[in-house]
Amino acid sequence: MPGLLLRDGRPWGTGGPTDLLVSGGRITKVGPGLAAGDAEVVELGGRLVLPGLVEAHCHLDKTLYGGPWRPHSAGPALADRITDERLRRAELGLPDPARVSALLETMAAAGTTHVRTHTDVYAGFPGGRVAEPPARGAVPTVTAGTGLTGVEVVRDTAARLAGRITVEQVAFPQSGILTNPGTAALLEEAIKLGVHAVGGIDPAGLDRDPVRHLDVVFGLAERHGVRIDLHLHDPGSLGVFELELIIERTRAAGLAGRVTVSHAYALGQADAATQDRLAEGLADAGVTITTAAVFDFPVPPVKKLRAAGVNVACGHDDIRDLWSPYGSGDLLDRAMHLAYRSAFRRDEDIELALEAVTYGGAKALGLAGYGLAEGSPADLVVVDAETPAHAVVTRPPRDLVVKAGHIVARTDALSRPPRG
Amino acid sequence: MPGLLLRDGRPWGTGGPTDLLVSGGRITKVGPGLAAGDAEVVELGGRLVLPGLVEAHCHLDKTLYGGPWRPHSAGPALADRITDERLRRAELGLPDPARVSALLETMAAAGTTHVRTHTDVYAGFPGGRVAEPPARGAVPTVTAGTGLTGVEVVRDTAARLAGRITVEQVAFPQSGILTNPGTAALLEEAIKLGVHAVGGIDPAGLDRDPVRHLDVVFGLAERHGVRIDLHLHDPGSLGVFELELIIERTRAAGLAGRVTVSHAYALGQADAATQDRLAEGLADAGVTITTAAVFDFPVPPVKKLRAAGVNVACGHDDIRDLWSPYGSGDLLDRAMHLAYRSAFRRDEDIELALEAVTYGGAKALGLAGYGLAEGSPADLVVVDAETPAHAVVTRPPRDLVVKAGHIVARTDALSRPPRG
Repeated sequence: MPGLLLRDGRPWGTGGPTDLLVSGGRITKVGPGLAAGDAEVVELGGRLVLPGLVEAHCHLDKTLYGGPWRPHSAGPALADRITDERLRRAELGLPDPARVSALLETMAAAGTTHVRTHTDVYAGFPGGRVAEPPARGAVPTVTAGTGLTGVEVVRDTAARLAGRITVEQVAFPQSGILTNPGTAALLEEAIKLGVHAVGGIDPAGLDRDPVRHLDVVFGLAERHGVRIDLHLHDPGSLGVFELELIIERTRAAGLAGRVTVSHAYALGQADAATQDRLAEGLADAGVTITTAAVFDFPVPPVKKLRAAGVNVACGHDDIRDLWSPYGSGDLLDRAMHLAYRSAFRRDEDIELALEAVTYGGAKALGLAGYGLAEGSPADLVVVDAETPAHAVVTRPPRDLVVKAGHIVARTDALSRPPRG
Repeated sequence: MPGLLLRDGRPWGTGGPTDLLVSGGRITKVGPGLAAGDAEVVELGGRLVLPGLVEAHCHLDKTLYGGPWRPHSAGPALADRITDERLRRAELGLPDPARVSALLETMAAAGTTHVRTHTDVYAGFPGGRVAEPPARGAVPTVTAGTGLTGVEVVRDTAARLAGRITVEQVAFPQSGILTNPGTAALLEEAIKLGVHAVGGIDPAGLDRDPVRHLDVVFGLAERHGVRIDLHLHDPGSLGVFELELIIERTRAAGLAGRVTVSHAYALGQADAATQDRLAEGLADAGVTITTAAVFDFPVPPVKKLRAAGVNVACGHDDIRDLWSPYGSGDLLDRAMHLAYRSAFRRDEDIELALEAVTYGGAKALGLAGYGLAEGSPADLVVVDAETPAHAVVTRPPRDLVVKAGHIVARTDALSRPPRG
């Protein structure tokens, strides 16, 4: 297959315009004035080149993306949203391959080359009980589990888009593990179907027994060699305690680089000294923090975490689903939200948000060779922006998207000089 | 002049498609199946019609919009930004009519028909002192005042765009009034030049004497019959106290409907009982709260304020200037940020954010007859969205913008059926 010669791009972190030669799905050469040989030449006109964007946290199986507008139907509490989803997902035909596909197409066109998605995997409640914080006395009405349907739908839909975007799944016990007997076994079946990671959710606040919840999650990860990505919404000192448990257990299991905590609101709420202590622990244990900077929820202290050596990734969380009507699928948009909520004004700070949707996500997912170096997989996106920070602020069109060496999307703008 | 017949629009998404007849700058008739006469017919195909968007708080005189990317140059503290701006505005040629014009063009094309902008008006510091919170010992380096240059530049630039977008100015003492002798007189000169409102800024935190600061601001408003729009960033109980003073003074001066407090972070920070008490006072006194929902600053409790009868408006605050590199000039984008930070998920809640950039802003500015009724000024914007909430979430292109009965912007999409 003839390759691509990307002429006069400005790869993030380098000086003046240079060429990138792409062949066999990899960036084989970077430098000025490269010979094209039989490669197709694409003139970038000095545009900015970023590595392919990495969506580190979303829920493809829940999405209504691309369908008609569905006014949000749940009440204000978390338990309302859990119950509402359990009630309505069958009615709305979720997970819906057409919706998943529509969202992945949008993501790919917007420069996302890799996606980690949390797919609901939970058992039914034969007794009629819905997993809810016990303080709330809502009537349990929905008892069906997900089985492995979500995992299969996402897997099969992603397979049809292979080569355009890479999807890896986390088996996600949305309704608890311990409080939802049968879910641990389902998680194990999901792993056997090929999911890359096992998830967890509020080991204390939702599942009521943090240590035994982590026993199950870490046990599955260790037995099957998969990664871990836990949802942690628990606030305040409870959330801090759980972060400590996760740090200790990651160290003990020797899983540095293979464990992610998503959301970690408690980290954003903690006082400065506690943040410092946790940042040191997370860095030392090799635990990634993934944030989505959604709504008004606390955002972890990205700059402090990065300064301490903690890997930080970013994703959308919900996109146009029964949990949230918002979300575009555009990771530059999401990076803007993260930078904005972090009150990042200076270029070097705003770049931290861009790093979260690129290198940070790649590290969380364990993508080998990720980047724009010679030998890296040829996953990249080209935008008309002066600097990486400028790209985050303005979120310009993706003029060219290359995945595994193939052009996935391009705009007419490439035939014109950049706006500068 | 022949008018316009807008065929098959859905005003604010309520009820079925209807026609709007526009003539002499007004909406003269609303109803199905209207006769066009000699009016130009524009088929809306069932699209959503909103009244013209109202930008209730921005700083046109500071903007670098449309120019090259300028990495943020100030340090992290508020005083750093004040000093940085005083240092760099001359170097960058601010206020710059070309930048102001570029931003107003973008706003108009995005459906904004009215703008309230705060224009810096402050005296120089002959002694070399820069107004700063006294706790901070930064070296005073910039001593020049603004004179009335900003007011004139904005006035003249807006005049060139008259008919496309209406701009009103607030004379804004960015560097204080009491602590910056000569500024009160300048504010009075600005009023004589035709500004619509007099501003203020942190009467306690910045200007060090809340009562006398309000004496000056309210005194000018009463003597000259202009409106008031005060910046209030002061946090916590200090900000609450200042809100109380403003409520009391608005009542005493009989200025209901003519006073706005912008930002009011303290209102977002207060406990529920204090919020309730202030909401009642603000409603009773007729004080508008304008929020921009920027960065991670506290957002006033929009739903609670509206339920109590308080008028709420919204604007961008800084747009691509020395204070903030962010901002698009698109008020649907800004409404999304407000809805998002308010964690509004349900349609009826998300609509509150849209109301803030339409009816709420119109009320703050005192726009007579504003809306989509027969007799209203023909200021409106048409988008391809199913509901008002859908428009906030997706921020679709503005397919048609009409200002004072004239078409300001239209897209090719109008020739095609809506996506639905």
